[in-house]
This record gives sequence, structure tokens and C-alpha cells, in this order.
Amino acid sequence: MSGAGDARFMALALGLGARGQGAVWPNPAVGCVIVNAGRVVGRGWTAPGGRPHAEPQALARAGAAARGATAYVSLEPCAHHGATPPCAEALIAAGVARVVTALEDPDARVAGRGHAMLRAAGVAVTTGVLAAEAARAHRGFLLARTEGRPALTLKLASSFDGRIATATGDSQWITGPEARRMVHALRARHDAVMVGGGTARADDPMLTVRGLGVARQPLRVVCSRRLDLPLGGQLAQSAAAPPLWLCHGPDAATGRREAWAAAGARLIEVRPGPDRQLDPRAILAALGAAGLTRVFCEGGGAFAASLLNAGLVDELVGFTAGLALGAEGRPSLGAMGIDALSEAPRFRLIETRDAGGDVLHRWERAGP
Amino acid sequence: MSGAGDARFMALALGLGARGQGAVWPNPAVGCVIVNAGRVVGRGWTAPGGRPHAEPQALARAGAAARGATAYVSLEPCAHHGATPPCAEALIAAGVARVVTALEDPDARVAGRGHAMLRAAGVAVTTGVLAAEAARAHRGFLLARTEGRPALTLKLASSFDGRIATATGDSQWITGPEARRMVHALRARHDAVMVGGGTARADDPMLTVRGLGVARQPLRVVCSRRLDLPLGGQLAQSAAAPPLWLCHGPDAATGRREAWAAAGARLIEVRPGPDRQLDPRAILAALGAAGLTRVFCEGGGAFAASLLNAGLVDELVGFTAGLALGAEGRPSLGAMGIDALSEAPRFRLIETRDAGGDVLHRWERAGP
Repeated sequence: MSGAGDARFMALALGLGARGQGAVWPNPAVGCVIVNAGRVVGRGWTAPGGRPHAEPQALARAGAAARGATAYVSLEPCAHHGATPPCAEALIAAGVARVVTALEDPDARVAGRGHAMLRAAGVAVTTGVLAAEAARAHRGFLLARTEGRPALTLKLASSFDGRIATATGDSQWITGPEARRMVHALRARHDAVMVGGGTARADDPMLTVRGLGVARQPLRVVCSRRLDLPLGGQLAQSAAAPPLWLCHGPDAATGRREAWAAAGARLIEVRPGPDRQLDPRAILAALGAAGLTRVFCEGGGAFAASLLNAGLVDELVGFTAGLALGAEGRPSLGAMGIDALSEAPRFRLIETRDAGGDVLHRWERAGP
Repeated sequence: MSGAGDARFMALALGLGARGQGAVWPNPAVGCVIVNAGRVVGRGWTAPGGRPHAEPQALARAGAAARGATAYVSLEPCAHHGATPPCAEALIAAGVARVVTALEDPDARVAGRGHAMLRAAGVAVTTGVLAAEAARAHRGFLLARTEGRPALTLKLASSFDGRIATATGDSQWITGPEARRMVHALRARHDAVMVGGGTARADDPMLTVRGLGVARQPLRVVCSRRLDLPLGGQLAQSAAAPPLWLCHGPDAATGRREAWAAAGARLIEVRPGPDRQLDPRAILAALGAAGLTRVFCEGGGAFAASLLNAGLVDELVGFTAGLALGAEGRPSLGAMGIDALSEAPRFRLIETRDAGGDVLHRWERAGP
């Protein structure tokens, strides 16, 4: 099989794997394609909840056609007996002749053992195909294993001049219906939707996925040092489901903690940073410890600035609308204390396109 | 000839015409293609300085092949004897069988007479082919004729969050070399490059086209109510060429007027608005009266905001860089006094693309 053919089938496996994003944490969203004599005979991706894995589903579709076939898997097959038997074993048992993977699984229980198990059984193994694309697709899972935190996507939707509301607070709607629909689709592909306390107070948002008919809602996370959030609002009324997690500081009043717990929210105490605000690294560490791999932050400006300053934003998604609001408008980002351009967090452009008349632009972290 | 074929050749004529943009004012930048039996036998566009026109150049290239051919012209051929004989007459004399145009010329000396002259001579005439595209291409010329002002393009290059410098003024470079090269190419396609006095003081810019090997520089226009611009700077040293025009208010001190006139600048007194600042409509009217058809404004923020608020920005060109500067950074637009989103100037997206790692987005005026 040519390198170009390998890349083509791996791209297909990555596309399938992406279907599980947001629904499989703490597991990776893996895709698998079984190819026999140049024909796709089985496809699979990690099921909602994380099981079954991609490989056994693709093998089941392929049936007898898996014998002598090549399996394309977007991440190294697992080698350990967990809730399910190891996928490497399943591939061997099905008589697969060759396995092509994109990345080694950094999970300590796998870490090359899946590849080794396959090779020991006489299966040809090729690794590193579309490794960069796979590292992007599995970024959340990889960061959870290597840094103990989820991947973070920050969304900012603003006017042409970077404003998210007029001085009087008028913000509905800056972007159009297509951009807003895309935001809901982005929410659905993350494990959790997160905002700061200021946004929760100002907008009283539901933070749910609407209009897309999804079966599963992402978690909701609100970060509020003092838990001074309206107990009469939408979030409080819906705190039990979809799950609402509240990250707060040690100085949140006991009464507020109790009220929110009674409403059904999960409380997560997070250590403060040197400025006595919630330490953004501690927030993400707590979410990572809880198993989250992909978090979608929608502001507000002060919270977004603290995440950017801490170097925690892995992907930036901008929606820019064709209107000008002027300098009195509310800024999309709060103060960052940057004096020289060299200090500014930098991002590399992945994609830009027309999103129903607004500009969608996606970036990933480049430095400093 | 099919409508699709007509559109294809008219698109070619528009592309040729665009080559003259910035170099032909106060004339329109017209393109002409002569097609005989489906083959392009002649091409022409308005020459630098505005003469010769597109049609006689295309006819000269076509020679005898113009007989019985179709001429595609992006604007109605002229019908009046000016510095050159009328183009409608030249087309008739060459034996062209059919003329296809995009737009009627609103110039009072033409205004349908070109089309009428052709028809009277037995030439078949089709008009309105790619009329919307032609109206965009000829916007400057059309506005000069209908509203007495040039078309205005506003460029804003900013960080992801709409900032053009840090709080300390560091702004080199927010966008990358490709975006900056594109700005020079945009300058070259306009009759004049314009900035407000604040930018002239802060940046002491040359406002010239560099790195593209252009033969002709656009005019330079600086709008400064009191003419409080540094007489020791680059602009003053180079005021004689390329031409520097200074729009100022009635309250500019005589000494400053004399010093700038002595340096070689052309002084244009403009009436103030109700806020005692220069009235942006008066500025554009003065530039229109001087013959300009296409003006490229590069800020600063306060000047840009006044142009937007006056509804004078016909095209908005944004360059968005992948870095975040935070709320203390200098905003791309000054105060606009907008309370409700419905009051904000709105723009329709024309194009967005990757410009060497920055996002280029182009918009045209939609309302209110």
C-alpha cells in the first residue's frame, strides 16, 4: 500500500473518530477503518460513553473480510484488559495482516505495548501516518495523559473591531444564525462548556446544545471564585441536568456552597493564584482529574484573558461580524498586562471561511 | 453568443480594467476585450493618466480582426469629443458588429449617448452584463459622478481582539510580511492613501508603495484640523513628491499653513462639523472635487470611527493576526457613540482568506 493510500484511509479513520468527540471522555475518540484489497470492509468509532472501542466495531462490520486486511486506527490499539478485552488481541484474532496507526498511546497501560503485541503476533505495523493531524484530533486525550489537563478551545465572537457588546450591554445578535449554529455544533464536540462567573451573571446562559437534536449534552462548568451567581436563574433551575460543575475558591461562603449543592450542582474547590483569583491552571487540573479531555470556553473577557495569559488556550475560534461598535463597546478580552508584542500569546491560523456572512477563523497555539 | 460566454468575456474585461485602478483618476479604469469567432483578438485598458482609453487600444491590437467582432467594455463607451475622439465612434469605424457593456456611464456627457450612437450605426448593443461586479469595480468613478466624492476603502490591521498596539505603543509588527505586502498592493490600486493627524504624528509614515516596483505612487492625504504635524518628519521632508495633500480646518494657524506650503504640500481647507472636528463628508467632497475616485484610509482609530459613523466607508479591509493583546491595548476604532446594535454600521462579507498566516477579510457597506 502506498503512503498516499495509507494517508487517505487514515484521514477517513480520523474523520470517523471525530464523531465521538465530546461523548467519550475520559476515553480518546478513536476511528478505525478495515481495508481489504483496496476496499473498505469495516468502519468503527469509539461509542458514546467510551465503549465499545473503534476496532471491535469495525471488525464486527468486516466479519470474515478482516482476514488478511489492513486496519487503520487513529491511535495505538489498547493492550490491557479493562472493561473490554484489548483491541490489539481482537485485531490479531480476526486475522488482520497489517495495522496502520497514527500515534502511540501515551497511556501508561499502553505506551507501545499495543504495537508490540501486534508485531509479536506477526502483524505488520506501520505507525506515524498523519501523526500531526491525529495529535490535533486527540489533543485532549494526550494532554490529559501528559499534563493532567483537558484541551481548551476558546471561542470569541465579536464585531469587526473586537467588541462583544455596546457600552449599554446590547449584544444580541452580533453574529448571524449560521455562526450561532456553528457554536452549538462546537459545544456538542466538547466534553464541557465553560464560562466565567461574570458571563453567568450577565447572560444567565443555559450553556446547552440547542437546535441540533443531540442525544447527549456536554457538561456545564462555571468558574466563580465566590459563587456569587444568581440562585434564581436558568443555571440554578437546571443545575441537576445536564450536570453543572462550579469551580470556586476557598473563600466561597458556606451558605452559597450549600445552596448550589442543594440545587444539584457539583462543587469543585480550586486554589487561588497569587492575585487571589482562581488559578486557571488549577481549574484545568481539577477538570482533568475529573476525566474531562475537551473543554470549550465561551468567555467572558476577563476569564478568557486569564486563560490566554496562562498559556492554556490550545485552540482559538473566532467569529468576526461585519459591524463596527467603537471603543466604548465591551472588549472581547480583558486586561492582559502586555507591554511588548513579544509577550503576547501567539496562534497559528488553521482555517478561515465565510460562516453565513460572518468570518470564522480557527487558530492553534504557537507561542510564546 | 450565450449569456455565460458574455459573462466570461466581461469578467476578462473587468480584470483588465482593474489594472488601471489608482492610475487613471479622474477617469474610470475601463477594460475592453475584442472577440471574433470566439477568439480574443484584442485587449485594452485605460492607460495611466487616463488616456488612451481601453477601446482604441483593444481595437489597435485587433486590427482587421475587429471587423464583425464583439467588443466587451466594462463601461459604456464615451460619446463626446474630449482630449480623444469618442470611443463609440472608434468602435463603429472599426466595423465592430456588437458591443456588450456592463454599465451605462453616468457622466452627463455620456449617459446613454454612447449606446445610442452605436445603435444608430447599426451595431448590436447588449448592456448590463456583470453589472453588479462592474458597479463595484467602478464604484469610485460612479460615486464621483453621482455624489461628488471618491470611494473609500478603510483598512484595519489588528490583533485577534481588535488592538493595533500595546498600551505602551508597540505595534511592529502585529501582522506578518505577506499581509503588509498586500497593504502596499492595495495602496497601489488607489488614487490616494489617507490617514488622520494622530497617525501622522505617532508613526511619521511615508504612506508610499514600497517593495512592488510600481512606477506611479498614489497621492498622500493627511487630515489634521490644526496642522499640528511634525515639520521635521518624513512627511515634511518628502512633501513635494509623491504629492502630499493636507486637509485642515479654518483654525489651522497661518504659520503652519505657510510652513507646509513651503515644504511642498497642497493645503485644502475643509469646513468643520458640529463637533468642530473636520467634517468627514467635507473632506471627501474636497477630494472628489480635486478629481480623486479611490481613496485608501489606514486610520487612525478616531479618524476611522468618524468615517464609519458618517456612512462613508464603502469597503472595509481587515487583517486579523493570531495574537491577543488584551483590553489595555490601543483599539482599532475610536469612540462611536453607539448604544444599540441596530445603530452600528454594517458590512457584507465579500471575501475571507489566509494572508500568510493572518486572516484577510473584505467587506462592503450594507447599512444602516
